[in-house]
Amino acid sequence: MHPSVAAPPDLTSAFQGARALVTGGLGMIGAELSRRLLQLGANVTIVDALVPQSSANLHNIASIRERVQLEFVDVRRTDALRALLAGHDYLFNLAGQSSHMASMADPLADLDVNCRAQLTLLESCRQVIPRAAIVFASTRQVYGRPAYLPVDERHPLRPTDVNGVNKMAGEAFHMLYSDAFGLTATALRLTNTYGPGMRIKDARQNFVGIWLRQAIEGLPIEVWDGTQKRDFTYVDDAAEALLLAAICPQARGHALNIGGDRVISLRELAELVVAINGGGEFVVRPFPEERRRIDIGDYYADDVQFRRLTGWRPRMTLEQGVDRSLAYFREHLRHYV
Amino acid sequence: MHPSVAAPPDLTSAFQGARALVTGGLGMIGAELSRRLLQLGANVTIVDALVPQSSANLHNIASIRERVQLEFVDVRRTDALRALLAGHDYLFNLAGQSSHMASMADPLADLDVNCRAQLTLLESCRQVIPRAAIVFASTRQVYGRPAYLPVDERHPLRPTDVNGVNKMAGEAFHMLYSDAFGLTATALRLTNTYGPGMRIKDARQNFVGIWLRQAIEGLPIEVWDGTQKRDFTYVDDAAEALLLAAICPQARGHALNIGGDRVISLRELAELVVAINGGGEFVVRPFPEERRRIDIGDYYADDVQFRRLTGWRPRMTLEQGVDRSLAYFREHLRHYV
Repeated sequence: MHPSVAAPPDLTSAFQGARALVTGGLGMIGAELSRRLLQLGANVTIVDALVPQSSANLHNIASIRERVQLEFVDVRRTDALRALLAGHDYLFNLAGQSSHMASMADPLADLDVNCRAQLTLLESCRQVIPRAAIVFASTRQVYGRPAYLPVDERHPLRPTDVNGVNKMAGEAFHMLYSDAFGLTATALRLTNTYGPGMRIKDARQNFVGIWLRQAIEGLPIEVWDGTQKRDFTYVDDAAEALLLAAICPQARGHALNIGGDRVISLRELAELVVAINGGGEFVVRPFPEERRRIDIGDYYADDVQFRRLTGWRPRMTLEQGVDRSLAYFREHLRHYV
Repeated sequence: MHPSVAAPPDLTSAFQGARALVTGGLGMIGAELSRRLLQLGANVTIVDALVPQSSANLHNIASIRERVQLEFVDVRRTDALRALLAGHDYLFNLAGQSSHMASMADPLADLDVNCRAQLTLLESCRQVIPRAAIVFASTRQVYGRPAYLPVDERHPLRPTDVNGVNKMAGEAFHMLYSDAFGLTATALRLTNTYGPGMRIKDARQNFVGIWLRQAIEGLPIEVWDGTQKRDFTYVDDAAEALLLAAICPQARGHALNIGGDRVISLRELAELVVAINGGGEFVVRPFPEERRRIDIGDYYADDVQFRRLTGWRPRMTLEQGVDRSLAYFREHLRHYV
């Protein structure tokens, strides 16, 4: 992954010497976040269960492996996780089941990770680290099919899959523990996040991963429908948003949208990937039935609230992000397939 | 409990000879609903675990005990519950943990009943009775502290306690299974429901129960603050709303408010109870701290959507309802204390 941009001074002063725990720290976002935290002078504990169906990958932290404390603990193991919390100033709560299709095939497994484990973790935080700043990685999936665009935080919540319901509950627990118990908790509703370190084995996490792989391997990119409009956040921008959320007092107790640098249709994105890859092709197919019924159609975020509160904005264009992602996976492909 | 008003013809034609299952059927609302279903010609299965902290009470079905199939099954027992579903045309899904304070003291117990068990039940419905009409008893608690009054269904969801989050998730699962799997599911967001059969042992269910008991026993009614405005639904009106929701095609896939016949402050309600009781007194005390932090302040519902769709309206005034409740508990007190 590329060197991060210079950190604003407030991030350095907040994290220098601090202790941060990152659940899901072997995933795409968690690994980049951990790297940024180390750069900012923090001590980092990564908690991850290396769930095979997730984006967790030890190669994601290859360059920082010796500088982080790595604990292979599943967030469902309440007692083990509680024992690790003590002394931490920041909790970046990123661990979760993120596949929409998997949540429909095994709804209870999704519930146990994304809903029940969040409640037990917050109970532990209340007991062990009541003064820590907590940031929860939520998702645009809580909105369901947009009733209007761009989607702001007042949009009704009507998830279209089990994953969306459980993430909605997990997010609400964070807000509740902020309101009722005085914890400092913030949630970010992420849109499609992509970049080096993402899952490219299949389309479980999101379709961009498998597209990148197909492009690199010279296979046609398979586009379903293609007219859907979406926004995309590059992993470094997502990590920066999580850092800023942790130190922004006005964000406390809020669930805020994170978007991308622009809106694009999936067909246009496929064209862009092929062009930046310097070759390849894509085919457009009808939406598979079992995905169609949980698909949300067009989505893009109004993230003006978070931008105003923190000064955050995407630093990476989609062209740059796709270029860096393709370059990364070309070099490291064997660790991800 | 009093004889029900004559059923509109559409209720009779819908339920005559039908098979209805009522979870939580020994509670105040479930028992009255079961009685109405029998009157309408339905065959009724009651599923209830007689949880000591709930309003479940065998005396609630004393007059219909021989005419219903009664199964002592906890909704968390997925397999046992699934086995009971077969052949039912209607599922009234009322079982739940309803104490706000208890949900804060034991959040996981609340989650397992109000959230996890709802998901397992819906999975079973999808497999066993995909064509049944399902009505879920949700709660105004999903809204949290009102941002405006009266609260309509567009109001943001920001629960102030664990119970509210879990009921929100339980409700969302019903909506999701309606959208994604074609189940016929409707949710009603009930406000304070009161009447014969409610829990009067303590303030676990809601404060009206203990007030009625204090009035009957000649003890001072204890009012916390007293300025809070609320609406109240008499149990028979709540049961009628559930019946109408089950047969209203336009309500399918919606979560709709149910309110009362008017708005009243708690102090005024205490005065009314004392007056109708023909004696007694009340004392006003400050709000206990652990309740204050989860209190929602003023709440009353805009239930115009449900009224328009179904023609429902409260048939019982607060005066009549309190009068009937006091009369009932004076006669049956020993079964409830």
